[in-house]
Amino acid sequence: MTYCVGLKLEEGIIFVSDTRTNAGLDNVAKFRKMYTWEVPNERAIALMTAGNLATTQATIGLLNERTKASEQRQSSLLEMASMFEVAQLVGRTLREVISEHRSHGMAASGDFDASIIVGGQVGSDAPTMFMIYPEGNFIEVSEDTPFLQIGEIKYGRPILVRAHSHDMGFSDGLKLLTLSFDATMQANLSVGLPLDIAVYENGSHTFSQRYRITEDDPQFQQVSNGWGDALRSAFDAVPGIERDRLQPFIQR
Amino acid sequence: MTYCVGLKLEEGIIFVSDTRTNAGLDNVAKFRKMYTWEVPNERAIALMTAGNLATTQATIGLLNERTKASEQRQSSLLEMASMFEVAQLVGRTLREVISEHRSHGMAASGDFDASIIVGGQVGSDAPTMFMIYPEGNFIEVSEDTPFLQIGEIKYGRPILVRAHSHDMGFSDGLKLLTLSFDATMQANLSVGLPLDIAVYENGSHTFSQRYRITEDDPQFQQVSNGWGDALRSAFDAVPGIERDRLQPFIQR
Repeated sequence: MTYCVGLKLEEGIIFVSDTRTNAGLDNVAKFRKMYTWEVPNERAIALMTAGNLATTQATIGLLNERTKASEQRQSSLLEMASMFEVAQLVGRTLREVISEHRSHGMAASGDFDASIIVGGQVGSDAPTMFMIYPEGNFIEVSEDTPFLQIGEIKYGRPILVRAHSHDMGFSDGLKLLTLSFDATMQANLSVGLPLDIAVYENGSHTFSQRYRITEDDPQFQQVSNGWGDALRSAFDAVPGIERDRLQPFIQR
Repeated sequence: MTYCVGLKLEEGIIFVSDTRTNAGLDNVAKFRKMYTWEVPNERAIALMTAGNLATTQATIGLLNERTKASEQRQSSLLEMASMFEVAQLVGRTLREVISEHRSHGMAASGDFDASIIVGGQVGSDAPTMFMIYPEGNFIEVSEDTPFLQIGEIKYGRPILVRAHSHDMGFSDGLKLLTLSFDATMQANLSVGLPLDIAVYENGSHTFSQRYRITEDDPQFQQVSNGWGDALRSAFDAVPGIERDRLQPFIQR
């Protein structure tokens, strides 16, 4: 399993992915799920993948090839005129890979599925981010819900829903995503450290800010442990539910 | 969808279920998912269901019939010698219903699946609780993980994992389960109020303490709103993640 989140802030976009992949609990491996492309002073694109590893690697491979082969250059990530066109290209490529694998392989539907988050900035357009479904269609991040998730999304969602705010800075944004991953990793063994992080600052057209959080990262431990204590304090701060003030249920 | 949780405490067991059921988002209805049986001074059994409504209602129907027909009374919930035998009977009944529906109906596997939580006390045995799978087998609640969940379990799990403690009282236990439901209902529209609650006090052999939490329940609103504030305070109390103290990721 996989968990990836992108969070759009006023200052820019944070991308975080785990690095664990598995085919059954006894076949766990580390794979990168985050990829970036840059043209200095012009564009920066980050992409995160969840789902069938063969599908996502084939998709990334095709996208990469097109940036290299000069005759295909015009249909490459590095030539698209906007992030919307980037999302269209990624969606088309993903759909092609899945349908090709399906037509040659087993009939089991869903086996080759994958989802993708792609975000960044092209030229002076506003930075933005899309979530791409296996069918190749996609949705764009919004102000109301400034985060997109793929993979094992449920455990880490309540904290995002409760604590996100549009005007939080990178430091708080990184804390929020760390807590979302912490909740997921405590519940699902197939999502695991290290975490890959890319921070995109509006207008920078570069992903020079790439980080990796490992198990012995002091800030990660501080957030994870501190959160346990803070959560228990929060729990104690809320009054308990007294039975004598509840509405009795009348058995029919 | 459905969400049900049972939480075993030192004082007894709390059972909470939602009441929403749906076949698609435009076909939402309210159904009870919690059932109780009692023999005064002898036994009290609570049962919660998740999954295919036809399957769970047929299972409950069969279990109920056997408590009424005198010639089948010896194989009824009211005659089992222990909670373990109760779990065996429920598991056997559930498996029979599912396999019968499957053999007559569509081949689509999983369509008729359901899960059950059953708990309570028989005689002077220790109160206990089981989670029963569609295959009819089951697991018992443990001291390390004193809660069992069925249905839409993921959103509400992180708070249970983080905040449960074996020695919490009924008031805190009810608060914890309310928060777990609150997290789930904020993320998944197909889990909804009202909540059915049954509190079993060790040795009481009765479920006289049955409650229902509706949308305008003042304590529910207090917990839900108070939790938002407490969570934000907790979030602020944990230090943010500073980029300049993170380990840079070296692109290969």
